[in-house]
Amino acid sequence: MTDLISLDIESLLTAYRTAQLQPTDVIESVYRRIAARGNDAVWIHLLPQAQAIAQAQVLAGSNLDDLPLYGIPFAVKDNIDVAKMPTTAACPAYSYIPEKTATVVDRLLQAGAILIGKTNLDQFATGLVGVRSPYGACSNVFHDDYISGGSSSGSAVAVAAGLVSFSLGTDTAGSGRVPAAFNNIVGLKPTRGVLSTSGVVPACRSLDCVSIFTLNCQDARIVWQFATGFDASDNYSRQVPPQTAAIPLPFSFGVPKADQLKFFGDAAAADLYEQGLQRLKAIGGNLVEIDFQPFQQAANLLYSGAWVAERLAAIQSFFETQADAIHPVVRQIISNGLRYTAVDTFKSFYALEALKQEATQQWQKVNILALPTTGTIYTKAEVEADPIALNTNLGYYTNFVNLMDLCAIALPSGFRANGLPTGITLIGQAFQDVALCKLGDRYHHHMGGTCGKITSVRISA
Amino acid sequence: MTDLISLDIESLLTAYRTAQLQPTDVIESVYRRIAARGNDAVWIHLLPQAQAIAQAQVLAGSNLDDLPLYGIPFAVKDNIDVAKMPTTAACPAYSYIPEKTATVVDRLLQAGAILIGKTNLDQFATGLVGVRSPYGACSNVFHDDYISGGSSSGSAVAVAAGLVSFSLGTDTAGSGRVPAAFNNIVGLKPTRGVLSTSGVVPACRSLDCVSIFTLNCQDARIVWQFATGFDASDNYSRQVPPQTAAIPLPFSFGVPKADQLKFFGDAAAADLYEQGLQRLKAIGGNLVEIDFQPFQQAANLLYSGAWVAERLAAIQSFFETQADAIHPVVRQIISNGLRYTAVDTFKSFYALEALKQEATQQWQKVNILALPTTGTIYTKAEVEADPIALNTNLGYYTNFVNLMDLCAIALPSGFRANGLPTGITLIGQAFQDVALCKLGDRYHHHMGGTCGKITSVRISA
Repeated sequence: MTDLISLDIESLLTAYRTAQLQPTDVIESVYRRIAARGNDAVWIHLLPQAQAIAQAQVLAGSNLDDLPLYGIPFAVKDNIDVAKMPTTAACPAYSYIPEKTATVVDRLLQAGAILIGKTNLDQFATGLVGVRSPYGACSNVFHDDYISGGSSSGSAVAVAAGLVSFSLGTDTAGSGRVPAAFNNIVGLKPTRGVLSTSGVVPACRSLDCVSIFTLNCQDARIVWQFATGFDASDNYSRQVPPQTAAIPLPFSFGVPKADQLKFFGDAAAADLYEQGLQRLKAIGGNLVEIDFQPFQQAANLLYSGAWVAERLAAIQSFFETQADAIHPVVRQIISNGLRYTAVDTFKSFYALEALKQEATQQWQKVNILALPTTGTIYTKAEVEADPIALNTNLGYYTNFVNLMDLCAIALPSGFRANGLPTGITLIGQAFQDVALCKLGDRYHHHMGGTCGKITSVRISA
Repeated sequence: MTDLISLDIESLLTAYRTAQLQPTDVIESVYRRIAARGNDAVWIHLLPQAQAIAQAQVLAGSNLDDLPLYGIPFAVKDNIDVAKMPTTAACPAYSYIPEKTATVVDRLLQAGAILIGKTNLDQFATGLVGVRSPYGACSNVFHDDYISGGSSSGSAVAVAAGLVSFSLGTDTAGSGRVPAAFNNIVGLKPTRGVLSTSGVVPACRSLDCVSIFTLNCQDARIVWQFATGFDASDNYSRQVPPQTAAIPLPFSFGVPKADQLKFFGDAAAADLYEQGLQRLKAIGGNLVEIDFQPFQQAANLLYSGAWVAERLAAIQSFFETQADAIHPVVRQIISNGLRYTAVDTFKSFYALEALKQEATQQWQKVNILALPTTGTIYTKAEVEADPIALNTNLGYYTNFVNLMDLCAIALPSGFRANGLPTGITLIGQAFQDVALCKLGDRYHHHMGGTCGKITSVRISA
């Protein structure tokens, strides 16, 4: 048979349970669609189809009910290790072949998911644009001239283009949210330490999170559930407390004062954000104006404070010996890490603690924040012409989240007249990951639940 | 009447309740004893007796039952602000006169305690010896040739010599525990953030704790109770969780492997530690051997890692303009902060996180650690001859505690044949402060409960 089907987890599992499809059918269709896209800069390392099929065939001997991600195709950003495949972090000269698969990938494989390949990224996960890679710049799935967003560019596009059901990214500054918004998918940025970063090339090691791209919020929650777990091999791993705060109904959502909202001249984005806020009201939310200043000042610290030195610490010996092999924009940013002393670093921490304390006062008024995922979007040409300033604009609503120990879910939130999507991000306090997925699910359903560009694919069985 | 009485809180409150004594009687006796000691280097700023008496007279109009510390004389280390009194941090050139009293002092005053003065310290709270001060070196209460310990030297001696009922110190590396051990009193080093450090001259601001010296563990618990409380003006302030882990009975206590114990040739201290462990068994403890290595390596990080730059950050402009006014040994230590870059700092953090993770495995075996407070004690002359190395020896069992987010109580643990006391320290995980006080109380009672040098004083009413 041949049928149109969504690649979301429930649809695939239902098709498997009812024997309409086999995992091998899905994998074959995945490779057909990948081939059809040609050189789309999504993949740095694609598994040979035969290897992916072999993974699917292994599943045949398993009970579907034992494997919550049975036969679900996924991709991982190429700064996350998979044993015996090169990890490039989008820097060929840096590339190495790990012996061990990253904990978080291993958990998903153990749950029955089928790995398709490693995806493109802004080099060393430094960027929100998706153009800082020697492997090419992914295109936005809705318009070739526009950026895909980054740094998890390939992972976001792979989901939005119907190539895989879900993917892993990483998110230090917004790398798991910005490309979700630009490609109309769900991007979950979990609480720090909840998904192991063991086997992940660090960007800012004390802040890095593995993130999850999916077609809907339920899938984000499922992947989160099977990807999480304390990992003693990650020194920043944290246990999820047995009881975590739910988001009540009605709930209150914080929105920056009008003069603190920035859309960088993108009036359509401003309108769509306003519509998003109305949608939140329609699902039981009370809008509360908050002072965004402490959050915004924390966002500034990420690149204008000592944390940029973490990016240098992550690749110090490589930087010292092979700086020429680094993308010039990335090199320029990371070299700023040389400017900071230990005293500066502690002062940056003190500044952050002060801002956290100020933010606490805002959190007393609201259950979540509801922010534009980004204020606007740019073409590749615009970004190439002004690579750092425009990237900074894209982080206005995202850069503070990890510094302030928050979690976030980026949701599709409607299209501009030019066909480009916008996103809204719901931000919660640490460990509210599941609560955000649940609330995001209600928002997304209220939107109509469309996701990505390719909402359903043809699979022959 | 004239009678011998202990200065502990319960004894004084009982005397007040039964009208045997008035607070003015106690304050007069305090000043008599201070005068009798002459120039003991304990005080940097002593309140004029009339002012202390005035505080006592104000209490006359209050109900004793409303003021849990009614008429209890106390001292504070001179790196803690009291409005309109100079704060020197034992550096006259650094001195300033604050407008505002430190939160923690204010809380104690509000509870009815009577402030007597500000006490001597190792300059900028940098030291465990008590000799790094232009205001002179306090002597150990048991032997003039020996160090009092530091950095909270005057605060510890003031309690041990029967000058006040309790005192506040600060403790970053061991400054609230080492001088407790050397003067045979109780030193509580609370969990980081539980006592506000607002109005305290920072040593390592991210690690600093206000500490409590008392004659017994019950008093430590009482002072802790009235000194604690979230303070929004301290960016490192933390709420004590509503439920904190108790220490069970029987409990297990961790002791380093034999080859990880260091007494620096002090066989009597080793014997007394062994007796202390037997005492812990007698009160329901099970000795469990642990690997002390992660703790010891964390201890090394405090001065051999980037944290020394926090000491520089704390006084940076003063250091840059008036370095000559700094005690030479303190200047030498703090100037090491110049050596470290931001990258070094993050690497120090990563090293600490790795050690914390290793330590978690040890904590799975035990409820508390039971360590010598120090391995040995030195004469002033020995310390002056080798000021840094011997100080380092004294921090072997204390330096890691704040870095690893632990709390601790230093307890009297018996005397060497030469009349000098030793201490044992019980170390718990964050927020076990009260549980440690309770267990410490049982240990101290089993010891006979003697404390300080002057166990009771003569007060005329």
